[in-house]
Parts: sequence; structure tokens; C-alpha cells
Amino acid sequence: MSKTVFFHAGCPVCVSAEQTIADALKQPVEKVHLGVAAHRVAEAESLGVKSVPALVIDGHVFHINHGADLSALK
Amino acid sequence: MSKTVFFHAGCPVCVSAEQTIADALKQPVEKVHLGVAAHRVAEAESLGVKSVPALVIDGHVFHINHGADLSALK
Repeated sequence: MSKTVFFHAGCPVCVSAEQTIADALKQPVEKVHLGVAAHRVAEAESLGVKSVPALVIDGHVFHINHGADLSALK
Repeated sequence: MSKTVFFHAGCPVCVSAEQTIADALKQPVEKVHLGVAAHRVAEAESLGVKSVPALVIDGHVFHINHGADLSALK
């Protein structure tokens, strides 16, 4: 089973994207709010995430629209 | 049933995104290659698409990563 993670930061762009995308995907999506779970910023970065909202499916990073750069969350 | 359209232009960024995203979604995805179906650029634009690859789910536009601006396809 593929692992799917949606990284966001609670911004309006993120929240709107999150709901529609998560509903449309077959597999369950782990949602990670980097504004709250700041300790996971490094994990996001190591996966190749540059900005949020971002969806990671099986190691493939998809930057969806643009809410905030990851650097703003450190 | 929601309508899902994936607009792309055949670029490497688009093709890679297309396969993973289309496989991960529950619903069937109509794939529109705007480089070939240039008459659909206006349709994409009217939906709010600014660049490709872009996924439109039920009227919500998600710009995924960045391949090309729509203006480059006119």
C-alpha cells in the first residue's frame, strides 16, 4: 500500500486543497500541519517538499497551488 | 459523479505527475493534452487554469508543480 502524506500549514489555500484532494484519493491520507508539528519540517524537506500545500505519494512530491514556502515554517 | 480533468502539455513534469495522480484518484480522469488539443486552451482558462500540469476536480483548480504557463500554449 502506498503511503500518502499531505503537508500543509493551515492556511486557507491549504485547507481548501486538503479537503478536495483527500476526498478524491483512493488511499487514506495522513495530514501533517507543519505549523503545529514543526518537528516534521525536516522530514518534509528530506522528501523534497519546497512549499505547502504539498502531497507526497509514494515518494513523489506534488506541490499543489501555493500557500507558503517551507522556509517560512522554520 | 464529479468531473475530473487533468490538463497537461506533454512535458516531462506533466507526464510524470499525470500517471501518479491519475492512479491515485478514485474517479476516472479525462486527460487533455493542450499541446495537441489547442482548441481546449480557452476551456482550461475559463476554469481558472494558469499553468500545466493542472488538475480540475469539480471546478476546483489545482496547479501541480509547474511545467508551463498557459500563455506558452496559445
